[in-house]
Amino acid sequence: MSHNSFGHLFRVTSWGESHGPAIGGVVDGCPPGLSLSEADIQPFLDRRRPGQSKFVTQRQEADQVRILSGVFEGLTTGTPIAFIIENTDQRSRDYGDIADTFRPGHADLAYHLKYGVRDYRGGGRSSARETAVRVAAGAIARKVLGDTVRLRGALVQMGPDIIDRGRFDWAEVERNPFFCPDPVAAERWEALLAETRKSGSSLGALIEVVAEGVPVGLGAPLYGKLDAEIAAALMSINAVKAVEIGEGFASAALTGEENADEMRMGPDGEVEFLSNHAGGILGGISTGQPVVARFAVKPTSSILTPRRSVDRFGQEIEMRTKGRHDPCVGLRAVPVGEAMLACVLADHLLRHRAQNPDAPARARLPRN
Amino acid sequence: MSHNSFGHLFRVTSWGESHGPAIGGVVDGCPPGLSLSEADIQPFLDRRRPGQSKFVTQRQEADQVRILSGVFEGLTTGTPIAFIIENTDQRSRDYGDIADTFRPGHADLAYHLKYGVRDYRGGGRSSARETAVRVAAGAIARKVLGDTVRLRGALVQMGPDIIDRGRFDWAEVERNPFFCPDPVAAERWEALLAETRKSGSSLGALIEVVAEGVPVGLGAPLYGKLDAEIAAALMSINAVKAVEIGEGFASAALTGEENADEMRMGPDGEVEFLSNHAGGILGGISTGQPVVARFAVKPTSSILTPRRSVDRFGQEIEMRTKGRHDPCVGLRAVPVGEAMLACVLADHLLRHRAQNPDAPARARLPRN
Amino acid sequence: MSHNSFGHLFRVTSWGESHGPAIGGVVDGCPPGLSLSEADIQPFLDRRRPGQSKFVTQRQEADQVRILSGVFEGLTTGTPIAFIIENTDQRSRDYGDIADTFRPGHADLAYHLKYGVRDYRGGGRSSARETAVRVAAGAIARKVLGDTVRLRGALVQMGPDIIDRGRFDWAEVERNPFFCPDPVAAERWEALLAETRKSGSSLGALIEVVAEGVPVGLGAPLYGKLDAEIAAALMSINAVKAVEIGEGFASAALTGEENADEMRMGPDGEVEFLSNHAGGILGGISTGQPVVARFAVKPTSSILTPRRSVDRFGQEIEMRTKGRHDPCVGLRAVPVGEAMLACVLADHLLRHRAQNPDAPARARLPRN
Amino acid sequence: MSHNSFGHLFRVTSWGESHGPAIGGVVDGCPPGLSLSEADIQPFLDRRRPGQSKFVTQRQEADQVRILSGVFEGLTTGTPIAFIIENTDQRSRDYGDIADTFRPGHADLAYHLKYGVRDYRGGGRSSARETAVRVAAGAIARKVLGDTVRLRGALVQMGPDIIDRGRFDWAEVERNPFFCPDPVAAERWEALLAETRKSGSSLGALIEVVAEGVPVGLGAPLYGKLDAEIAAALMSINAVKAVEIGEGFASAALTGEENADEMRMGPDGEVEFLSNHAGGILGGISTGQPVVARFAVKPTSSILTPRRSVDRFGQEIEMRTKGRHDPCVGLRAVPVGEAMLACVLADHLLRHRAQNPDAPARARLPRN
Repeated sequence: MSHNSFGHLFRVTSWGESHGPAIGGVVDGCPPGLSLSEADIQPFLDRRRPGQSKFVTQRQEADQVRILSGVFEGLTTGTPIAFIIENTDQRSRDYGDIADTFRPGHADLAYHLKYGVRDYRGGGRSSARETAVRVAAGAIARKVLGDTVRLRGALVQMGPDIIDRGRFDWAEVERNPFFCPDPVAAERWEALLAETRKSGSSLGALIEVVAEGVPVGLGAPLYGKLDAEIAAALMSINAVKAVEIGEGFASAALTGEENADEMRMGPDGEVEFLSNHAGGILGGISTGQPVVARFAVKPTSSILTPRRSVDRFGQEIEMRTKGRHDPCVGLRAVPVGEAMLACVLADHLLRHRAQNPDAPARARLPRN
Repeated sequence: MSHNSFGHLFRVTSWGESHGPAIGGVVDGCPPGLSLSEADIQPFLDRRRPGQSKFVTQRQEADQVRILSGVFEGLTTGTPIAFIIENTDQRSRDYGDIADTFRPGHADLAYHLKYGVRDYRGGGRSSARETAVRVAAGAIARKVLGDTVRLRGALVQMGPDIIDRGRFDWAEVERNPFFCPDPVAAERWEALLAETRKSGSSLGALIEVVAEGVPVGLGAPLYGKLDAEIAAALMSINAVKAVEIGEGFASAALTGEENADEMRMGPDGEVEFLSNHAGGILGGISTGQPVVARFAVKPTSSILTPRRSVDRFGQEIEMRTKGRHDPCVGLRAVPVGEAMLACVLADHLLRHRAQNPDAPARARLPRN
Repeated sequence: MSHNSFGHLFRVTSWGESHGPAIGGVVDGCPPGLSLSEADIQPFLDRRRPGQSKFVTQRQEADQVRILSGVFEGLTTGTPIAFIIENTDQRSRDYGDIADTFRPGHADLAYHLKYGVRDYRGGGRSSARETAVRVAAGAIARKVLGDTVRLRGALVQMGPDIIDRGRFDWAEVERNPFFCPDPVAAERWEALLAETRKSGSSLGALIEVVAEGVPVGLGAPLYGKLDAEIAAALMSINAVKAVEIGEGFASAALTGEENADEMRMGPDGEVEFLSNHAGGILGGISTGQPVVARFAVKPTSSILTPRRSVDRFGQEIEMRTKGRHDPCVGLRAVPVGEAMLACVLADHLLRHRAQNPDAPARARLPRN
Repeated sequence: MSHNSFGHLFRVTSWGESHGPAIGGVVDGCPPGLSLSEADIQPFLDRRRPGQSKFVTQRQEADQVRILSGVFEGLTTGTPIAFIIENTDQRSRDYGDIADTFRPGHADLAYHLKYGVRDYRGGGRSSARETAVRVAAGAIARKVLGDTVRLRGALVQMGPDIIDRGRFDWAEVERNPFFCPDPVAAERWEALLAETRKSGSSLGALIEVVAEGVPVGLGAPLYGKLDAEIAAALMSINAVKAVEIGEGFASAALTGEENADEMRMGPDGEVEFLSNHAGGILGGISTGQPVVARFAVKPTSSILTPRRSVDRFGQEIEMRTKGRHDPCVGLRAVPVGEAMLACVLADHLLRHRAQNPDAPARARLPRN
């Protein structure tokens, strides 16, 4: 059952509310003998952390992760890895006014109707704060994948402003606070986001995550396909409304000729694809090409402009969401998307190994 | 584990290859006491069946479903419902030439590398034929959902040609062989598809599925969110490359003001949303609004134009895919998408009932 | 969810009622490339089959298994293996009188209260007929385990009559219709069972199953321990009321000194245990010693002596169960117990391989 | 997957090692709106806690549980309930000598061979300390079951000394440190255990757990039967080697007449069973009778008498286990067994409710 767990053999269970004492997770199924410490996880949390630039929420969380089990003398032991991240900045007073009201675009109404009881403080369980747990789990998943898998993400659209693919540069992603791979767009976005923040509005975003060096054969057809589980993983992130693999939505407008990824033999006996419309996945199984996924994040629902809503007593109200909020939650979704992709790949790596221990890792074909 | 099973409490297990003796499935967890017979399933299979118009593959399959267990004197008994659909038109001679070659865009190479052994006849396990099992399971899921849930699908884009939303008419969907809700587009598509077929090419498509009357509260945050599992369900269908909920990809370009679904109280004490950008789901939980999802199907990979490829011996080849194929597999994906949505909703209905038996079915708020 | 599925990576889903058209199952997760045909399964079904001697029910079922998917040109393909066994001898007229009554010791009342609707014919879903599916799945599991694992079972107690351990002889098991390893006991049992049958009574039994050559390391602590899952597997067989591993219940009466399995090094660098109170499992993990389990089967509940009961209308009745029944269902439980053990071991073999691919198969220790 | 998780809808995930910073768990799927605080859990932990009498290990652990999520203003919210118990008494120096050696009867060798790396301190993950997590989860499960279910346990055999059933008194269980329901046996056990402890030996035990007031219909045939899952739950507890339901092993020696639980109608229209050989479960489904299970715990493997063993370098050694140990671990297994039974019942209560929401809670039959 997948209420708050994710994955099968690399299984992540997440817990915690935005304003409880802590959030945390348990990773079960991690192979033994991998070197792991907090230092492997913390850098990824730091990338996601609020309060780092003026473009993200000014909530100050140290987001210090602490491993509580599953690691002994610097190595994973094959037993569950529990980790905890304390909530140090719990200004509950900010949130008292939403105890009885339902913010448009937020989960408030849905949780109220489903559960009756809800921890409304900062969105409680539905807060984007939980994504820190995903990022921590993703850091452990990267250990399982090893160094041959390179996993990166970038923001390729902010609001209506799309990057120029011709200027795509992974190195640029680390140089600006927007995870933007296009330096020219990054400059525009700085102005765009400043203006958005000033006006109390917010923007959506589109994120691209790419995994290179993925072994051939990951994916469990027909219902545990690699792309199906990537779709679930990315769609489960807060505020995500769409997911696509490879050519994605654009593939609907293509012909069969345009969409086919033709194949040739590389000099080393490895199959080479002449294009990657498939996004590295055919029939739900990885082919060795880069796995490419994109997901759309809706604009932050917390805005200063008053919106019409209702409260739990059935009264019609107008509400504006004060407090500390990201004008574009999509920004922080980049490390989260990478983490979810890492978790899916790690899970499928273990699953593939169980059923097909002798399958090749690369798409090499024996040449007569 | 989800290799070939789907769902948790309403659990579908699928089996079968395109050219084996039969395909079939097992639905476990269906509540007892529902009236069910083959007559409840067959109409949905007939909608999906090949050979019905010149626009779909001319493979002739009766696709007669037979229930083997779980039903007694016309009622479900709560035990597993097994059903079988025989493969009556297995022209294996058509497929001998692909035993050693890998068709671009198909799963051939991926299965070869992952499993070593594969039933290449008609694509074997990766054939779209398996979707008949999904459709049969979906018919059972509709029984679980009951009459208050109305679940429909339509093709809203064929290749580059998009319907006019102003002409959207559900009744029209049943009047043309394209599941097209726009009568003007349907006419254009007839010509477009005829031309495509003649040229041996193929087209992608975009399908929209909508469920009205969905009870409030379905969805299990955070990793079993309703939208996350819809995404997995739709992405697991053959040839699907993208999934979106509600506003979907377009939400990336919106502002928070534009995206917010404002709320008012209806005359009967039920919350009314003034828009449905959310697609009926907030925080992963259904709100009672229509659940709206769209998914993109890539163009059929089987085309007559020769494409460069390789064979299992590492030889470079050119290949064109002869035989009986749909010029637009997206057509037949409409009943499949409906079925997958039905299965996800049925599963979540049972899950919701287990944890929240006293939750309201409609978004009613007590008015003082 | 485990309603009618069993195992995780080697996953068996079972369906079918005693008097429906057929029973069958789906094995998902079986590795590809194993040679498999009906001929590998049929002998195990034949061992379990009714009607073979006067000591088991005279119901005549051919119990011919047919594989419907997952095998191509004699090899498993890694896709789901569906198999079906038709119900050829469905004398429903025998069972009409139990439509409204609840046989003591049977599942009739429980199914009635839980499901409302039930297929009462021959016990429906709760019939021991379903164990044929288990036996078929077990035959496939044996393929996964390979020839190095030797898996056998024997009846070690029938009613109050216990075998003499000093005469335990595996070869004898195949020589008598009781799976009895003690030739002297086998003779006694012939008389005992004849008398029991004549009087319309029935007897319980104790079965022992042993797996030799099990690789070291199978078992997933703490809740997926090998012994815990063996316990579930055996207890899920019809009429089983107790399960023990190794010393089992007798261990309660031992001291720590008596119970300890001391260890020495064998000549080949392999750990040798000087006893096997543990039954081959420590901390939920296999140690390479023989895995030994026993399970108790209650006496067949269908007896000729009238027993007091009630019917669905709340009327008090007396009932005797006519028809064709085993005087000792435990007899046919021997191949079923073997099959369940095989399934658990196969599942854990795959799980172990996923998480610990480099773990040794034998308990060898490096000697300085 | 069930490495360290247990249950499906009431799902417990456990983590932690004996000498790490803490142990803990996550309960996912608990219904919302139940009153819950640490005060509901602590009494059960106190019952299990070491250091309370001279008959259990003198390790001093406060075993203070702290809830970290899933509860808001005293009520469960339907989100995961995480709890943590710090390890305050981690005398790692006691355990250095077992870093390279394998204690007979312990999991040391098995973990070494399976994982390569292991936290040997105090048994690490395989320590009975983890059972505190089970007890905490059980306390939450009791909340789900509600007051109508009464769940109790007792030690009915210590070493070779069995209680007199004629003197069975639940009230007596709380009056002696042995959970012994027979005051005469309790006196004998005091002497027996003192002697055992003095000699550095240890004793096995047999525990009985009983749940009264269990609703009718719990259990998911055929592989998720209530008794099968109770068997797995109890067998997964440290040192348990056997599990039986109702008549259990003794049923093997009975005739059908003896074993049948006859039925009559009670004055209130409820079915009354005249005996309970079935232990409250027929066909894997609860009947409303008391659910009765027993499990055998082997003697503590840590004893002072030297035993032959080997070390990780393949050297033959003799070892005696010093340190603080229970002479009879079975004592502390009583609250653990109760907790596991509570978890299984809570899980099945939710599962039953999902599939059969209209099933009756009691075995009432409509009388004409």
